[in-house]
Amino acid sequence: MQIDLNCDMGESFGAYRLGNDAAILPYIRSANVACGWHAGDPLVMDATVGLCAAAGVRVGAHPSYPDLQGFGRREMSLSPEEAEAFVLYQVGALAAFTRAAGVELTHVKPHGALYNQASNDRVLAGAVARGVARFSRELVLVGLAGSALLAAAAEAGLKGAGEGFPDRAYEPDGSLRSRRVAGAVLNDPVQIAANAVHLARQGIITSQGRVAVETLCLHGDNPASLAAAQAVRKALEEAGISLG
Amino acid sequence: MQIDLNCDMGESFGAYRLGNDAAILPYIRSANVACGWHAGDPLVMDATVGLCAAAGVRVGAHPSYPDLQGFGRREMSLSPEEAEAFVLYQVGALAAFTRAAGVELTHVKPHGALYNQASNDRVLAGAVARGVARFSRELVLVGLAGSALLAAAAEAGLKGAGEGFPDRAYEPDGSLRSRRVAGAVLNDPVQIAANAVHLARQGIITSQGRVAVETLCLHGDNPASLAAAQAVRKALEEAGISLG
Amino acid sequence: MQIDLNCDMGESFGAYRLGNDAAILPYIRSANVACGWHAGDPLVMDATVGLCAAAGVRVGAHPSYPDLQGFGRREMSLSPEEAEAFVLYQVGALAAFTRAAGVELTHVKPHGALYNQASNDRVLAGAVARGVARFSRELVLVGLAGSALLAAAAEAGLKGAGEGFPDRAYEPDGSLRSRRVAGAVLNDPVQIAANAVHLARQGIITSQGRVAVETLCLHGDNPASLAAAQAVRKALEEAGISLG
Amino acid sequence: MQIDLNCDMGESFGAYRLGNDAAILPYIRSANVACGWHAGDPLVMDATVGLCAAAGVRVGAHPSYPDLQGFGRREMSLSPEEAEAFVLYQVGALAAFTRAAGVELTHVKPHGALYNQASNDRVLAGAVARGVARFSRELVLVGLAGSALLAAAAEAGLKGAGEGFPDRAYEPDGSLRSRRVAGAVLNDPVQIAANAVHLARQGIITSQGRVAVETLCLHGDNPASLAAAQAVRKALEEAGISLG
Repeated sequence: MQIDLNCDMGESFGAYRLGNDAAILPYIRSANVACGWHAGDPLVMDATVGLCAAAGVRVGAHPSYPDLQGFGRREMSLSPEEAEAFVLYQVGALAAFTRAAGVELTHVKPHGALYNQASNDRVLAGAVARGVARFSRELVLVGLAGSALLAAAAEAGLKGAGEGFPDRAYEPDGSLRSRRVAGAVLNDPVQIAANAVHLARQGIITSQGRVAVETLCLHGDNPASLAAAQAVRKALEEAGISLG
Repeated sequence: MQIDLNCDMGESFGAYRLGNDAAILPYIRSANVACGWHAGDPLVMDATVGLCAAAGVRVGAHPSYPDLQGFGRREMSLSPEEAEAFVLYQVGALAAFTRAAGVELTHVKPHGALYNQASNDRVLAGAVARGVARFSRELVLVGLAGSALLAAAAEAGLKGAGEGFPDRAYEPDGSLRSRRVAGAVLNDPVQIAANAVHLARQGIITSQGRVAVETLCLHGDNPASLAAAQAVRKALEEAGISLG
Repeated sequence: MQIDLNCDMGESFGAYRLGNDAAILPYIRSANVACGWHAGDPLVMDATVGLCAAAGVRVGAHPSYPDLQGFGRREMSLSPEEAEAFVLYQVGALAAFTRAAGVELTHVKPHGALYNQASNDRVLAGAVARGVARFSRELVLVGLAGSALLAAAAEAGLKGAGEGFPDRAYEPDGSLRSRRVAGAVLNDPVQIAANAVHLARQGIITSQGRVAVETLCLHGDNPASLAAAQAVRKALEEAGISLG
Repeated sequence: MQIDLNCDMGESFGAYRLGNDAAILPYIRSANVACGWHAGDPLVMDATVGLCAAAGVRVGAHPSYPDLQGFGRREMSLSPEEAEAFVLYQVGALAAFTRAAGVELTHVKPHGALYNQASNDRVLAGAVARGVARFSRELVLVGLAGSALLAAAAEAGLKGAGEGFPDRAYEPDGSLRSRRVAGAVLNDPVQIAANAVHLARQGIITSQGRVAVETLCLHGDNPASLAAAQAVRKALEEAGISLG
């Protein structure tokens, strides 16, 4: 039994600092690096890829809607052609930095509202998957376990990785509880660690049945999230679940 | 004796149309495709690379300062680290579309103020060349014949291509006459065609002696520039100069 | 019986030209000037306000979502606080140019997807109206006749102006037929002129009954739209409907 | 004897936090509020103006080059028409929020590279001053004491305010020592406070003789700068210099 641990990184921009990338790196196996559209800029991307390479962490692209002001969290309505080309552009931009650093680009995980909308919208999900596949069919497309995005990955001939969120509550149908609902986000490291083990072992039950969780999303932006990351690592080890 | 003919392309943006790419394509051998920073967007880049692929025209990246409002024509002062990373980002973004189209990315030609400033500023020129070289040493860096940019290409281990402008007047030292000076830009197709033959045969005389011109810059944005492109092609053929 | 004629203007950006403002000015009474978020830039705004002032045409603000790449036509999901502040910002920016030109800012007409979404979404409509009202309750808020935006104007203590589109087909409930449906956009000047007279006289029938049309939207971006504008003016005069 | 104390504020953007505005407010009399071009966004502007209004601090506009990625610190080369229109746009945008809050817009202080370049470049300084004057001749233009910007303010019929930097070393000619030179930036609150008193009393000696310092620039972004602000306030009081 194996599980990947991933975290969004490289979300600083110009004079603005965000996140605590160096602190979270020792706990994760895969970094999703912002591509300049919701966060990140070429200097940040270059430095972040360098950090990941030095730490031996896999580098993936974290493409977004064109929405720096809204940090990519605002829903937008794109044509499928736009979504496909926007993903392809951002994957290529990040791939320049992995290539320059001599490391492989391994995966793509859409950011924010693009991730959320592509979880439910098949047309958008298909466009995202095609954007990734046009760059390379070797890339893994990371999406919410059981979502339309993973179905689209399969259709596009891509390997998908079902993602789970140990610090989020789930609805009975396997979707994430909305952040607007009380109790949607968990803060207790003990509970988060228990969820991580459960997600790794049991996956998620959706209306289509049980789906596997292959990667867990961690955060590193505050001391509490770092403590949670630490607790997750420890709990997985104690449960005999190795990191993929 | 051989000469390349190049043209800037893909400079539309969103709802805005600019240039007449389809009309100029039959006359050129190399297209410099905007990368979204002074012009172009992912849909335009995708379509432009497709047009070039269908026409058998080489595709290069046309990176710029981050200046959509100023069309990349405003001088800016970047740190070398910024310039290097900005070029690398844009080259990677365009390379995603050539990769998706199954064609090779052959060259990089900086745009506007970045091109002009890198012609004279050795530090900036070095940064641009490093940005290109970090992506691939197989790429040709196009710069003003005899300029600091070509010297930087050589230092970075890149093949450079000296560019000449048949529709521009030159100063005695081999630099372009400023557009602010009367007579800097030529409009007569006969004169432009004669200049093209002369540049291809004689190159340019600079303070360091004669330098070769390996590619000529054409334009396609208005009927007059198309007539000039046609005249240049005809004159080169009649002079026995083949297209590279 | 009186009717206003309005047109969107100042939608060029940097090196990009759009529209034919000078040609349409003689036919309209009110100009909606882009504020730099979907189109326009400070130089374009300055020049456009100057053109309007010289022509004696009323100047209004034409605020938009922050979406230059999509020309403000992409649906977005903003919080009411964002929408309110975005409108206030853009109205203020344009008001600087009317103030400098010594003319009055008379009205505000939201652009593109913001206009369309605020026609149906009461929360968004309320936010837009508050953004306008916070600047000045003397401003007229232009919105689709019978829409939520006009209701919001009234609630915010603003005078609203119901807009009609003589070159668009209407659904039986008074909404505009979607552009995706065949026959949604009319091109025949004779038919457009007849619609203009009908809208001015009869208004629109909605599920809430008849609503007045106080301003008609014209376009000036191509020769056909200019011919339509001319036909509309002539038909209104012949019908004895004066321009407000 | 009177002196003003000013500080740049409202430099957060979207998800990014910068500065510690609430903490510095009690120490200053004038806030220079970012207008969205190097920092700030409409929500931040609205909130910042509200904070200033509540604290009884004067609100000014802090316009910049269009350079979010570079925080307005990169030198750019604008035409005078662009610089004038860019300043006018940003002043108007901020003025919408002061108007909505029922407070007066009192002054304008250019930001970063625009401030620095306009200190020495008369053409640029004239353009900035005209942009301010076109909005209102009641606005005070804040610039480096003894600089071209203050001369341009006078020419444009504006009241200028000569600014001094108690935490910066000065060259013998009255210009600021470049940040690239060691010792350019001071950190010791005692020394900064002594400089503040000296600048308020003696002004600055330039090649044109002594020039008055009417406002001192403070910072609030870190605990050390807050300590310095506190020390400056105390030293001015002890020296019998009242706050203007």
